[in-house]
Amino acid sequence: MSYAIGIDVGGTSIKSALIAPDGTVGLTHGAPTPRGVDALMTELATQIAWFEARAAEQDLDLNGRVAFVVPGIVDETKGVGVLSANLGWRDVPMQAKAVEYLGRPLAFGHDVRAGALAESRLGGHGDSLIYVAIGTGVASVLVLDGTPLVSGGWAGEIGQTLVTCPDTGDQIALEQITSAAAITRRYLATAPSDAVTGIDPATFGSREVFERAAQGDQVAADVIDTALDYLAQCFAQLVCVLGPLPIVIGGGLSGAGEALLVPLWEKIAALLALSPMPVISAARLGSNAQVIGAGLLAHGLGDGK
Amino acid sequence: MSYAIGIDVGGTSIKSALIAPDGTVGLTHGAPTPRGVDALMTELATQIAWFEARAAEQDLDLNGRVAFVVPGIVDETKGVGVLSANLGWRDVPMQAKAVEYLGRPLAFGHDVRAGALAESRLGGHGDSLIYVAIGTGVASVLVLDGTPLVSGGWAGEIGQTLVTCPDTGDQIALEQITSAAAITRRYLATAPSDAVTGIDPATFGSREVFERAAQGDQVAADVIDTALDYLAQCFAQLVCVLGPLPIVIGGGLSGAGEALLVPLWEKIAALLALSPMPVISAARLGSNAQVIGAGLLAHGLGDGK
Repeated sequence: MSYAIGIDVGGTSIKSALIAPDGTVGLTHGAPTPRGVDALMTELATQIAWFEARAAEQDLDLNGRVAFVVPGIVDETKGVGVLSANLGWRDVPMQAKAVEYLGRPLAFGHDVRAGALAESRLGGHGDSLIYVAIGTGVASVLVLDGTPLVSGGWAGEIGQTLVTCPDTGDQIALEQITSAAAITRRYLATAPSDAVTGIDPATFGSREVFERAAQGDQVAADVIDTALDYLAQCFAQLVCVLGPLPIVIGGGLSGAGEALLVPLWEKIAALLALSPMPVISAARLGSNAQVIGAGLLAHGLGDGK
Repeated sequence: MSYAIGIDVGGTSIKSALIAPDGTVGLTHGAPTPRGVDALMTELATQIAWFEARAAEQDLDLNGRVAFVVPGIVDETKGVGVLSANLGWRDVPMQAKAVEYLGRPLAFGHDVRAGALAESRLGGHGDSLIYVAIGTGVASVLVLDGTPLVSGGWAGEIGQTLVTCPDTGDQIALEQITSAAAITRRYLATAPSDAVTGIDPATFGSREVFERAAQGDQVAADVIDTALDYLAQCFAQLVCVLGPLPIVIGGGLSGAGEALLVPLWEKIAALLALSPMPVISAARLGSNAQVIGAGLLAHGLGDGK
C-alpha cells in the first residue's frame, strides 16, 4: 500500500494520519494546535518525523508524500492562508513557509475543501456536488468534475449569508441559526428552565437537542425546524442557480441522520417549482473526511482552481 | 476572416448572423420563430441556405460551421431540448433532429449560456463570472474557467428562486419582482391613475420606469428599489457560496446602466460581512451576446459540461 501523510490542522487540535489513495486510514497521530505560524511549522516537522519513524520500522515508503490543510480563508492555488480569526493569521504564505522550514516540498489545502474533495472522490456521490459542513459554523464547497471551487479562498462561506433573524428581525449570519452550535445555543436559550437545569454545557450539544426532539420536546423540535427552514431556503436557491447537484451534509450535525435529512428533503422539495429534487445525503467519510482529503492532496489527487 | 453561422432561436423571432471567432458580427438575418420542431428545422435550413448563398457571392468559406441555440431547459451536453413552455417542446433530441434533417453536423446550445460564453470570452470580465440576464424573466449562468455550468440543463434558473412577496407575503418566484417585465408591471399596478393614463403598454417598459424614477417619480423609484433589494439579497448569497466572481448583468434591464449598477453595488456591499466586493458590470455585447455565443459554438469555442 502506498501511503501519504495527511495533516488536518484544526482550531484546537491537529489530526494526522497515513492515508492510502483509496482513502484507507492507516496509523493516526495528533497534537494540540500550537499558537503562531512558527510553532505550527515546528509541530508539522514533529508529526512528519513521527510517521516517518513508524514507516521506517514497517518498511513503508512514504516517498515524501505530505500535505497539510488549514481552516479559515485559504487560497490553496497560491499556497496562502488569507485569514484565520481563530488561529490569528492573515496573508501568510503558508505553503512556502512550510517548504522552507521543512526543506522539502509538500502539498497544502483548505480543511473543508479537502473534506469535500475526499467525499467527491470516495463518497460515491459522483464527482460534482455541493458539500456543506455543519458544525461550529456552516461552510460549503462546490465541487465540479472533482475540483473544488476556490475563488481566491473566498468561496464556501455559505454560513456568512445574511438572513433575517426569526427572533429579532435583525440581519444575522445563516450559521447563527443553522450551525450545530447555534441549534444547541438557541435550545438552551428558549427551553423552560426546568428542562435545562443541571445540564452540563460541556457535554450537551446538537445531538442531545435532536434526542430531545425525538422524545417529544417541542422546544427542541421547533429550534431544529427553524434551522432546517433556513437551510432549505438557502439550498433551494442554490439548486435553482446550480442545478440539482447532490447535496452532501458533513460536519457534526450530519450525525443526526434521517432526523435531519428527511425533513430537509421535504422542505427543499416544497421550495422547488421546476427543478428535479437533488439527492440529499450525509457525508460517508464522517469525521475523517478532512484528514483523508489531506492525504489525497499529498498523493497529488487534488487540483483546486 | 473565418465566419460561422450563429442562429439564436427566441420565443418570438430567430436572429442569425455570420460571426467571426473574435465576435465580429458580419451579415445578420432573421425570421419569426415557427411553431413546432419540424417547422423549426425547415426554418434552420432556410437561414443556413440564405447565408451560404451570400457567402458564395463573397467567396467566404463558412466550412460548414453552424450552431443554433434555443431557450428553456436545455441539456446541450446531450443535445436535448428538455423543456420549453413557450415553444411547446419537452425532451426533444434537438441536435440529432437537426443533423438528420439537414444532413450535416452542427453545434447546439442554450441561448443564455451562449450569451454568457460570449461575454466570458469577449467581454473582458475574465473567464469566470456569474452572468445574469434580466429581461422578460431572470436567468443566470455560472461560467468557470470559460465553461458554463449546465447540470443536465437545470442550472441557471435563478429567477425561479422562491422569495417572500413584499405585497402579499406569499412565496413567489424572484423574477416576479426583479425582471424587467415585473418592474414594468408592478409600476403600472401601483402608480396613481393620473400618472399612467394614456400609457401605451406596447411601448412602455422598464426603460420608461427608470426614466420616471430619474425624474423624481417616487413610485417608480420604490419599485426599482424593491427589485434591487431582492436581487442584492440573492447575489450576496451567491458571493458567499461562490466567492467574489464578477457579476455581469445582461438582458434588457442592463440598458439602465449606472442607475441599475450603482445602487445594486451599494446594496450588495451592505450585505457582505467578510468577502471582498465582486466587480459588477453590464454585459458588453448587448443584445448580440446570444447570437455571438452561437457563433462561438459553431467555431468550436464552447465546451459546456
